Amino acid sequence: MSTRTEFQFLAEIRSRFDLRLSGDDCAVFPKDGANDQLISADMLVEDVDFRLERTPPEFLGEKALNVSLSDIAAMGGRPKYSMLSLAIPTKVWESDFLDKFYSGYMQIARNCGVELIGGDISKTDGKFVIDSIVIGEVRAGKAIFRTGSNAGDAIYVTNELGKAAGGLHLLEKGLRYSENLPEHQKALIKSQLSGTHQPFNTTFDEISPFITSMIDVSDGLLADLGHICKASKVGAELEREKIPVADALSVLDDLTDEQKFEMAVTGGEDFCLLFTFDEKNFSGEIPVGFHRIGKLTESIETITLTGDRNFAQIYTKGYTHF
Amino acid sequence: MSTRTEFQFLAEIRSRFDLRLSGDDCAVFPKDGANDQLISADMLVEDVDFRLERTPPEFLGEKALNVSLSDIAAMGGRPKYSMLSLAIPTKVWESDFLDKFYSGYMQIARNCGVELIGGDISKTDGKFVIDSIVIGEVRAGKAIFRTGSNAGDAIYVTNELGKAAGGLHLLEKGLRYSENLPEHQKALIKSQLSGTHQPFNTTFDEISPFITSMIDVSDGLLADLGHICKASKVGAELEREKIPVADALSVLDDLTDEQKFEMAVTGGEDFCLLFTFDEKNFSGEIPVGFHRIGKLTESIETITLTGDRNFAQIYTKGYTHF
Repeated sequence: MSTRTEFQFLAEIRSRFDLRLSGDDCAVFPKDGANDQLISADMLVEDVDFRLERTPPEFLGEKALNVSLSDIAAMGGRPKYSMLSLAIPTKVWESDFLDKFYSGYMQIARNCGVELIGGDISKTDGKFVIDSIVIGEVRAGKAIFRTGSNAGDAIYVTNELGKAAGGLHLLEKGLRYSENLPEHQKALIKSQLSGTHQPFNTTFDEISPFITSMIDVSDGLLADLGHICKASKVGAELEREKIPVADALSVLDDLTDEQKFEMAVTGGEDFCLLFTFDEKNFSGEIPVGFHRIGKLTESIETITLTGDRNFAQIYTKGYTHF
Repeated sequence: MSTRTEFQFLAEIRSRFDLRLSGDDCAVFPKDGANDQLISADMLVEDVDFRLERTPPEFLGEKALNVSLSDIAAMGGRPKYSMLSLAIPTKVWESDFLDKFYSGYMQIARNCGVELIGGDISKTDGKFVIDSIVIGEVRAGKAIFRTGSNAGDAIYVTNELGKAAGGLHLLEKGLRYSENLPEHQKALIKSQLSGTHQPFNTTFDEISPFITSMIDVSDGLLADLGHICKASKVGAELEREKIPVADALSVLDDLTDEQKFEMAVTGGEDFCLLFTFDEKNFSGEIPVGFHRIGKLTESIETITLTGDRNFAQIYTKGYTHF
């Protein structure tokens, strides 16, 4: 019992109580005839998901909202409202941390047209805990799940990979965020601490009818692709040279190219979108900056990488990361 | 800064970011033409809101849902969906606590027709934190706020008061819940540990057009009536002999009647409803078991109690309790 994972526990709860919990990034429920609603909750826990001593409070506020916005985007939805519940340790309450935290949160909310409508605040003598809830909308019946993909579909990611993992690497070496750092280092650390997310915006208008499944890259490319493969009962074949290893990783001169590649395929929290795509029926243009990294196969839950002898090992690391 | 309360902090945040946070029990937002939606989040923190060593896990699961259902009821709404986010300490994860916790939660969910649709789970090496989210509905424009009452309105509570405080008193004396306890003791302790709530159900059909404001009794009668008085810019006059001190408090033979009365007016977490009522325009029947305890006055934010010389002191305790 002590070794069960969160995923196993949720599966048990789901089956025991006959729940329709989707296991997807958001829950979906009807709004009116035209639209469905999406709701996502993400809990960030001090010393599990963030460390106070190395996180500028504005960045933590940004990340608190970004993680949930990314879930809404991953279902093909647009965010509308948010709620924020905080369990706040005394040391945080008594500093100006929260004021800066809310500044960061509200900056992202304004940029994304999200209205903070509620939540709860409690003090605690334990760790700082943030529960970030976002409510969004999607046209009725058009939410994009993990289950809809088929062998033969192309696999895309919407951005470079590995930045957040690269930032974590710098933080673990003792570097701290400062405006005076070189740009690439700042970009990596900020990516880890504040997150960014890919909104499901008008960029997707032309391609969205052909997207068959989608997820955000939060656990890492291989783990998240694994979630799609499991849900859709397919496998995947990735082309090693097509994986967009983040340019900014070039500053990590203590790492080999192989290690940087591992960061790109196993590192979590890049919060771009990973989607599968029915390309044989599509004759338009793929948006600039989206990367075609491979295709789905019929080898259920098996991910292979063309041109890489070490892949089995990498894949295992990625897939058991959570 | 260190002495600001949660209420002050929220007021600061609201004004600084020009938020429309209602300050009510739930946020309200439109659904379709016919209905509005309500959403409430309540965070329960170990050692602030509950203590693991004296709480049967089923009861904690029940309470986690009851507190949010009570918020939905307090706006005149019916619950539909729920989400549950948990930060779980290792000791809890490794026991059967969570299985029992979910049993309690799901029992209440089934009884109330609520569907658990999502949430998040994280491990923590800190305190157990529960964020309980409930989504409900109310007919469009019919949500009941704290702001709508007027001097002259009658004040009602839907149940006896002081049971949860009485239960806390027994727990603090070292008593623990067991099936073998006398019924009154069990009732008091269960009231504190698992909560119950008054749903806004068909009982309210006849009277609801005449309800001018409503809140659930979570902070204590005086504190919650104070919230209504502040929001509606009115005062209140309570009739001491009409306050329904819970029968079960009679078992607390170490307390004077005055102390039991204090429990009834200042004790939190009874989760019945407190509403104000335009009685001069109503000619029907008030539901059995609802108690008319006084009326609103024009003395802004002043609550007086007829026939009680000690009231000023009691009121102050109630009002500064949070």
